[in-house]
Amino acid sequence: MENYAKLLARMKEIGHLSSAAAVLGWDQQCYMPPGGAPERAEQLALLGTLAHEKFTDESTGALLAAAEAEVALLDDGSDEKLTLRVLRRDYDQAVKIPASLVAELAKAEALGHEVWVQAREKSDFAHFAPTLEKILELSRQKAQYLGYEDHPYNALLDRYEPGATVAQVDRVFAELRGGLVELVAYIKTRPQVSDKPLRRGFPEQGQRTFAEAVIAKMGFDFDRGRQDKAVHPFCTSFGKDDVRITTRYETDWLPAALMGTIHETGHALYEQGFQEKDTNTPLGGAVSLGIHESQSRLWENIVGRSRAFWDIHYGELQLTFPGALDDVSVNDFYRAINKVEPSFIRVEADEATYCLHVMLRYEIEKRMVAGELAVADVPGAWNALMEEYLGVTPDSDANGCLQDVHWSSGLFGYFPTYALGTMLASQLYDKATGDNPQIKTDLNKGEFASLLAWLRTNVHAPGRRYLPAELVERVCGEPAQSRSYLKYLNDKFRAIYE
Amino acid sequence: MENYAKLLARMKEIGHLSSAAAVLGWDQQCYMPPGGAPERAEQLALLGTLAHEKFTDESTGALLAAAEAEVALLDDGSDEKLTLRVLRRDYDQAVKIPASLVAELAKAEALGHEVWVQAREKSDFAHFAPTLEKILELSRQKAQYLGYEDHPYNALLDRYEPGATVAQVDRVFAELRGGLVELVAYIKTRPQVSDKPLRRGFPEQGQRTFAEAVIAKMGFDFDRGRQDKAVHPFCTSFGKDDVRITTRYETDWLPAALMGTIHETGHALYEQGFQEKDTNTPLGGAVSLGIHESQSRLWENIVGRSRAFWDIHYGELQLTFPGALDDVSVNDFYRAINKVEPSFIRVEADEATYCLHVMLRYEIEKRMVAGELAVADVPGAWNALMEEYLGVTPDSDANGCLQDVHWSSGLFGYFPTYALGTMLASQLYDKATGDNPQIKTDLNKGEFASLLAWLRTNVHAPGRRYLPAELVERVCGEPAQSRSYLKYLNDKFRAIYE
Repeated sequence: MENYAKLLARMKEIGHLSSAAAVLGWDQQCYMPPGGAPERAEQLALLGTLAHEKFTDESTGALLAAAEAEVALLDDGSDEKLTLRVLRRDYDQAVKIPASLVAELAKAEALGHEVWVQAREKSDFAHFAPTLEKILELSRQKAQYLGYEDHPYNALLDRYEPGATVAQVDRVFAELRGGLVELVAYIKTRPQVSDKPLRRGFPEQGQRTFAEAVIAKMGFDFDRGRQDKAVHPFCTSFGKDDVRITTRYETDWLPAALMGTIHETGHALYEQGFQEKDTNTPLGGAVSLGIHESQSRLWENIVGRSRAFWDIHYGELQLTFPGALDDVSVNDFYRAINKVEPSFIRVEADEATYCLHVMLRYEIEKRMVAGELAVADVPGAWNALMEEYLGVTPDSDANGCLQDVHWSSGLFGYFPTYALGTMLASQLYDKATGDNPQIKTDLNKGEFASLLAWLRTNVHAPGRRYLPAELVERVCGEPAQSRSYLKYLNDKFRAIYE
Repeated sequence: MENYAKLLARMKEIGHLSSAAAVLGWDQQCYMPPGGAPERAEQLALLGTLAHEKFTDESTGALLAAAEAEVALLDDGSDEKLTLRVLRRDYDQAVKIPASLVAELAKAEALGHEVWVQAREKSDFAHFAPTLEKILELSRQKAQYLGYEDHPYNALLDRYEPGATVAQVDRVFAELRGGLVELVAYIKTRPQVSDKPLRRGFPEQGQRTFAEAVIAKMGFDFDRGRQDKAVHPFCTSFGKDDVRITTRYETDWLPAALMGTIHETGHALYEQGFQEKDTNTPLGGAVSLGIHESQSRLWENIVGRSRAFWDIHYGELQLTFPGALDDVSVNDFYRAINKVEPSFIRVEADEATYCLHVMLRYEIEKRMVAGELAVADVPGAWNALMEEYLGVTPDSDANGCLQDVHWSSGLFGYFPTYALGTMLASQLYDKATGDNPQIKTDLNKGEFASLLAWLRTNVHAPGRRYLPAELVERVCGEPAQSRSYLKYLNDKFRAIYE
């Protein structure tokens, strides 16, 4: 197993380079002064190039082939076989992309972030357009290098959701969209609930104290992670023992930071939950963004927006903001944080409309990547689809096509995973509570350990051992489906809007 | 100039790797959760190894030789010639030290730090002695590999203060010591001033607001830098456009953060002051630790502890802490922050005694490196010199020879640069105000731009073009001397203690 050991040592070095880049990326979004941007772009480009070069070097390919020969007789389910399957997939994809393109993309994305921040501030799409064109063009080149069947978007989607295709996503999104539109239409016929109690003054410090107490109870390990402020909340990791989440506070909109923090905690629990023995190996990571999102959505919505959760925690929330919620019953609060109303901003969207925001982005970027939609036409297409899916038109590009960080970071193919994960959260929750009914009893007491334990065993510990579709099949005994999610939504929101 | 260009491209990459490591080091000291430590050590070791390998690779030597041939006919004062002079010096030194010794030292220092922390906690020098012996022995080996004339300490000193020698330092320190001992003896005969006003309650937020307003006025560019909290204050840089300083707040000791912040700002103004065209070249960096320290000491002491500074800023300080300083006149405050009193701890020492602490360490480490002082005899030598220089004997080794991190980190040769820089601060200030008398007028109005402009032109912009001694000679028209500093101290403190 000499070559296998050498290969893993190399992967460890590549992992360290990637972690170093992740630290630089975290700092860029949380603390870096504006003047640091150009140098940071170059530093990130270099680290990306070094990691890419080390990985795509011919000697890595030779080691991989030799290691595959070494483990040939082992069981297909052995860690060695599963490790090499992951590496073979990654390697074959990586060697298709020239180092020069990797470096060019990394640099364009780092600079793109600053330009996007400026453009969003000024709601000036034209300021962002040349940058977006550059990043889109490089991404289209990437798809060509990677190769694909049927649709160039497949090549990009596969990077975030290995094995997924436009054909599958189109099919499942069509089912989902039908159900969502029907539910949203029903809700529109009902008297609206009020979310005014959430718009009172909530000082930042109190929001932070309450949210951090909640996520500590949920299992976020502050000895192995921390939370900071950033314009666009995210979760990043420099190894399972240093997992960072970020949030942004709005003093007149309580859910922004509170539910955002629980969302990022769902991601962080996944990252903190990989096995010690998988540290710095190809198995010790997230299998896909869809699986990742299933964890964040499960904790944010199924747990964090549940009646059971607020029956337990509402008193503490009231105490955190003296006087602010004295006249609001837990029932009214529960209804408020679950208010369904088509709106402009994805990250603030309710559960019933959220996936419609995602599907809109998916449609637009799929067309951009296919060359069917020009960058200049994005604002118009965006606003037209907003009207079609949600019946509203954004009041500005800042609240429209400039709201997300993703395209400035070259993340074409990323968006659909939000909806895939959202669906999967319900499917996993149904399976978890079916396997262990105690989980519901515990949640009703504000205890999260049994739910986390089930997720650790079934979803976190496997790491990258199985493709997303395989993992879902192994855990749930069936492929990913929209049935669980649509039932969950209908049960919950038809009761709220009864 | 093809090889010259290739060489500079390589140096740029090495610079980016070093900057990436600096970001990781900054995060480690400012934000990293405890669980991140083991992985972070591996990430930093990898980045260090990659930078070292790239620099000491034979191909770098070949490029350097080829580049030297390319520029042979250029003027000796050309940037190309000066760049290659710096690189030749760095390269020849770097390749002299075997990789095995580098690794052994790194390991001994990593272990040594832990042992030192324990020894200091228990004030148990015997616990630290074997570790110190090991690090000393490896450092002596390093000196042998580097080569030297006259004294092995020269090889180590040269790493921090290029070109400086024991003979020069001995001479200038002898002058300085005589003057300092005489001044401290005089002050002992005078009534002591009180620093009690500095020990009242000063909330952290006020300290931060006041200090950040002051350093912004001094010229610290917050668009190209920031300040954070850390256990041990420091300044680090990821390029001249992203310079970070850190501080620690003590609510019952005002000077800790305030003067510490101005000190680190002096370092930061140097780092922010390199020329745009030198970015990522061997010229765009600090020439020595002594020159660096001259900048921090100049801003901290000559500006920040001056009567003129407080005449302008004391009112604002009083407003920042309502009520806390109402009964303290600006004269009493000025005297308080300039109180002279021999004490045990270097980092808390006043201006008149500080360099005596440094000279003591220099004497001891010089003798250790020469093999004239056994490790076991360090505590005795330390206490004897404390009595001789400062008239006090430490109450414990924790407050004596175990107080500094430097020896456990293998930094033999570093200490004297603190005193060289402190002296030089006065010499540079005299030259600046001689060249441009407006500087004093401006400082009396709380305006710092003319002083900063002089420093930018004369000290910052040259970067690494000249050796420290050359720079002093070019700027001041004479070698480094102690006369300016002794006159400054005598004028200031004989007035305060009149």
